[in-house]
Amino acid sequence: MGNRGFEQAEFEARLARAQAAMGAADLDALLLSTETEVRYFTGYLTRFWESPTRPWFLIVPASGKPVAVIPSIGAALMGQTWIEDIRSWSAPDLADDGVSLLGETLRELTPDRGRIAVPDGHETHLRMPLADFRWLEALVDARQIVGDAGIMRGLRMVKSAAEIVKIETACAIAGRAFGRVPEIAGPGVPLDDVFRRFQMLCLEEGADWVPYLAGGAEQGGYADVISPARPVPLAAGDVLMLDTGMVWDGYFCDYDRNWSIGDASSAVQTAHAQLIEASDAAFDIARPGATAAELFHAMNDVLTRGAEATDAGRLGHGLGMSLTEWPSLIAQDHTPLEAGMVLTLEPGIALGGKIIVHEENIVITDGAPRFISLRIGPEIATL
Amino acid sequence: MGNRGFEQAEFEARLARAQAAMGAADLDALLLSTETEVRYFTGYLTRFWESPTRPWFLIVPASGKPVAVIPSIGAALMGQTWIEDIRSWSAPDLADDGVSLLGETLRELTPDRGRIAVPDGHETHLRMPLADFRWLEALVDARQIVGDAGIMRGLRMVKSAAEIVKIETACAIAGRAFGRVPEIAGPGVPLDDVFRRFQMLCLEEGADWVPYLAGGAEQGGYADVISPARPVPLAAGDVLMLDTGMVWDGYFCDYDRNWSIGDASSAVQTAHAQLIEASDAAFDIARPGATAAELFHAMNDVLTRGAEATDAGRLGHGLGMSLTEWPSLIAQDHTPLEAGMVLTLEPGIALGGKIIVHEENIVITDGAPRFISLRIGPEIATL
Repeated sequence: MGNRGFEQAEFEARLARAQAAMGAADLDALLLSTETEVRYFTGYLTRFWESPTRPWFLIVPASGKPVAVIPSIGAALMGQTWIEDIRSWSAPDLADDGVSLLGETLRELTPDRGRIAVPDGHETHLRMPLADFRWLEALVDARQIVGDAGIMRGLRMVKSAAEIVKIETACAIAGRAFGRVPEIAGPGVPLDDVFRRFQMLCLEEGADWVPYLAGGAEQGGYADVISPARPVPLAAGDVLMLDTGMVWDGYFCDYDRNWSIGDASSAVQTAHAQLIEASDAAFDIARPGATAAELFHAMNDVLTRGAEATDAGRLGHGLGMSLTEWPSLIAQDHTPLEAGMVLTLEPGIALGGKIIVHEENIVITDGAPRFISLRIGPEIATL
Repeated sequence: MGNRGFEQAEFEARLARAQAAMGAADLDALLLSTETEVRYFTGYLTRFWESPTRPWFLIVPASGKPVAVIPSIGAALMGQTWIEDIRSWSAPDLADDGVSLLGETLRELTPDRGRIAVPDGHETHLRMPLADFRWLEALVDARQIVGDAGIMRGLRMVKSAAEIVKIETACAIAGRAFGRVPEIAGPGVPLDDVFRRFQMLCLEEGADWVPYLAGGAEQGGYADVISPARPVPLAAGDVLMLDTGMVWDGYFCDYDRNWSIGDASSAVQTAHAQLIEASDAAFDIARPGATAAELFHAMNDVLTRGAEATDAGRLGHGLGMSLTEWPSLIAQDHTPLEAGMVLTLEPGIALGGKIIVHEENIVITDGAPRFISLRIGPEIATL
């Protein structure tokens, strides 16, 4: 396993890239409010964000280090990061939950007619009460609160070598857990037990936690990939799928594996081989200069050769501090690939009212890409 | 264990309460966007929300059933709930990610000069891109988008009997896992292993998943309760604390337990007994008519008797579909208790630069309250 955390140089590099992009977009500050955004510039890692009670803020000024405006309960831990300017209040404060402190700090750090940017595009949200945001807009006087022109998305989309090590570590843990599925699943075992036991395997193999597990098991495929597991025993002819987003040191893996309970039908065998062929087709062209849309089409061409498309809406996505990140492998997304991107390839086939989905994780490099999910062949495994 | 899911009557009752409150506040629709808000009226339960990619919406009109405006990937599962009017689009759509469909649906369901409410107070956020929200404001023409006057908070704060069963089930699972901590923790075991193994125990005892685990272990207390666990072996004189928010059928428990590694110092023994005394003091007065602030003061009076206060900012909170909910046990919060509320009592003591925190879960009834966390005595357990 890699070391935990990052060298300070990692954060300095992220900040330098951010401030260069801010300069080009004429922005005087970034105002960040979500777990991943705050952690990206600070390394501040805690599961405390699970509580919706307290807002947390980080301001990236046009020059100089980021400034944290956070609840006092988090100040000591933030003080262990490279951030020096930490302003805190005792939250929750029902009269003023950090808003005037945030307004004051923004006024201090930006010019009178400055432009303060918040991430406002796809896959973003503002993690603060809307009433507080409207109040903040008044508190910053003549400053404008504008969108971040995709700066955060662009930064996070290309991973450093140190980030990739963490994602690979998560992928390796998942690979070991997938390898042990025969210990916990087989004919007669209820699916909800499989879900529970698989999360235990992930932890035993080294995951810090398991925020995401999806999957299904039904005859010849599964109805969807987002339902909770039900206490229905696995039976011969079922296709079992487990798709995990587990976390190591704040970074996700996101890939799945399928198993046939007993012998697979020829339709299932064909579908599985076609899925592997589809992800290989995208892998083969996944180099700098190709686009997200081209990877989509490479897979879709294989998938639609005699099969129906699923309604998942996309065939893969970015991966990193979040389970899913920019870009999306869809026909609309013309994001060019760059070395350092980490992607999932996630083709799906509809099969007689059911679906089968396969997913791999890859890293884009200057040359050929690299699988970081454990490779499997075209034959579906059996249990 | 209780049954999974809810009878339809549960959702009908929630909707009736909502629509009565909406009528009183002159609101023509609620527009909801977060996992808990959407699930509250639909029962729609999935871990798919872990992905930040897709927005999901539910509209509660002034009369009639809620209307879902969601990505097509979720339509089949939503179709299994009691919701009938489900409108979907293929997300992600980079040009229009459900915004015009949402605007059209709001225009259809509300009068021309209607008032559309979004939860906008403490502990809320709008889970959609800010740019899309600003676009939506334009799409609804002369309708106003206003705050929900605390309606969602008020609804969720008082739990039904069926909801309480789910929280109690989660508490019982945690109680069994806490009871097995001697199997996984003791002198020499690294704290990160304890965290990993404790999550496995929670799963083995029946948790669906373990989204939250906090804690610490240091000499005579711990530095904070939100740091990730480090690979530091437990040593004699450490106080180990584990605080879990695990989920059963979509509902959380949230309580902790402390253990002394080897014999506890008299300072630690005294502090632990004082914490139990503090939570008992709040428990004793926790009846309808008392306020959140009164519970805070009951605990704080015990805690400040010769000890320092911690900077946690509060001494407990509501609990349910989220790890933390309204109200907050702070001096400022004068919310009157009502039968059906589920609360945590979470006193903490600062002790020589460290802290020790204790937490219980209780249900408010028409008479005396009821502990749903497994009771312990004033003596700290040893490992």
